[in-house]
Amino acid sequence: MYHEITPEGFGIAIEKDKDLFSGKSEFQTVDVFHSRAFGNVLTLDGLMMVTERDEFFYHEMISHIPMLTHKNPENILIVGGGDGGTVRELLKHKCVKHIDMVEIDGMVIDASKKFFPTVAGELDNPKVSVLVQDAIDFIKGKENLYDIALIDSTDPIGPGEGLFNTEFYGNLKRAMKKGGIVVPQTEGPFAQSENMRKTYALLRKVFKYVAPYTGPMPTYPGGYWSWGFCSDDVEPPFNNSCVDSARADEIAKTCKIYNKELHSAVFAVPNFVKELANG
Amino acid sequence: MYHEITPEGFGIAIEKDKDLFSGKSEFQTVDVFHSRAFGNVLTLDGLMMVTERDEFFYHEMISHIPMLTHKNPENILIVGGGDGGTVRELLKHKCVKHIDMVEIDGMVIDASKKFFPTVAGELDNPKVSVLVQDAIDFIKGKENLYDIALIDSTDPIGPGEGLFNTEFYGNLKRAMKKGGIVVPQTEGPFAQSENMRKTYALLRKVFKYVAPYTGPMPTYPGGYWSWGFCSDDVEPPFNNSCVDSARADEIAKTCKIYNKELHSAVFAVPNFVKELANG
Repeated sequence: MYHEITPEGFGIAIEKDKDLFSGKSEFQTVDVFHSRAFGNVLTLDGLMMVTERDEFFYHEMISHIPMLTHKNPENILIVGGGDGGTVRELLKHKCVKHIDMVEIDGMVIDASKKFFPTVAGELDNPKVSVLVQDAIDFIKGKENLYDIALIDSTDPIGPGEGLFNTEFYGNLKRAMKKGGIVVPQTEGPFAQSENMRKTYALLRKVFKYVAPYTGPMPTYPGGYWSWGFCSDDVEPPFNNSCVDSARADEIAKTCKIYNKELHSAVFAVPNFVKELANG
Repeated sequence: MYHEITPEGFGIAIEKDKDLFSGKSEFQTVDVFHSRAFGNVLTLDGLMMVTERDEFFYHEMISHIPMLTHKNPENILIVGGGDGGTVRELLKHKCVKHIDMVEIDGMVIDASKKFFPTVAGELDNPKVSVLVQDAIDFIKGKENLYDIALIDSTDPIGPGEGLFNTEFYGNLKRAMKKGGIVVPQTEGPFAQSENMRKTYALLRKVFKYVAPYTGPMPTYPGGYWSWGFCSDDVEPPFNNSCVDSARADEIAKTCKIYNKELHSAVFAVPNFVKELANG
């Protein structure tokens, strides 16, 4: 049985059929196993990252909400995202010209290509540059390059830690074009409420508009996840009127989750989530 | 460690500090234990029913969505709900005159009163009749009595099984007043998709309007739960305009989840949930 148990003493359990891979990279331990419930499962330092059966929840949410709020997103940055699921979702948008995916750990990319073909299948697309390096260094000095940046990282412990500070976000802001939208994953509101609170305190220091949106994510702690819509120029899409209806319908056809009604609805969050995000 | 593992081979794990109660009623095994993560936890036949820390997700959702869609809900039926959390939420509404709570298993009520005072604390309220009997018998021959009926039952296996058929729902419909709204819990869309599909096929046979709404529920399978808004006279509140704003704001002040923006947003469900509910 695989377990991920939070410091508070609860979490998920998955019956493991078979270990498929275990490796130690420069940064973390990478494991892949097969389960009847979720197909192949990737963990980093024992923490759940991606399963074949439920990855669509996370990847659709981090991608399509900002992509369909932006008028014409052409150049995209992904920080992390080595499993390739975010790239796959982004490439559904015909307007995309180029994606820079900056993943610190090449072993994650290799394991995903081998064991998660339905997730990593677009990593070799000619529109994508896969850059195996630290995003903290990559982003320094970059200016006016990206329409959308997605921080598809691990928790603020381990390799992801340096991404959760104002220096990184300040550099990231300079790398954005006017009208740019930044969306980091912002942890589980129920299971990791203190991580979430700290992350939003940071985001509010950096961006004019900061709004959490949430959705289910069965294999992450608490089964409930959040992302932060951040921009200096673009208001969060609280009202569907800002969404290009034809583009949204076209994307929805390819999705298990995303549809036009959900686009604004995901920003209607529980009172306790508002409180965590607004400080 | 407590586990609830679905037949597919995944589920939740909770570190158990101490067993507090174990009893066999006529219907099921009732257990209560304490955990650091969730405080006291009640299980029936080993399946998760209620925890002190996350019960608000479920009880707010099953109660306030129909209550604030109905213009003036005075008389309410709860089928099941022995832990008392639904009663507690309903009594926040000043318009409520009387609640019949029909719970088959007295041991659930007794265990809740003893170990879940913050959940069961309103079961002795003079507006509430606690009826320990089978709701299938109770509802037969009743006519024109209730504004709202909430089916706060276990899964469609065990004692809850007889509630998932057209005979029960046909009798329930006759017990409703004009303008009545019925809301059953309708299982986990991700972890129990076949249960959910069958439940909606049944509900669509009985009611003119049937619409799923969903929300997080950390300790239930998949962390993601659904309820069905059912009525012959009242359209689902897809548009917030049908909600009494002052009443909704008053209730929201007392809630960890419910607010006016969420009222309609919870009806914007993922594509795969639409598909399960619409057949």
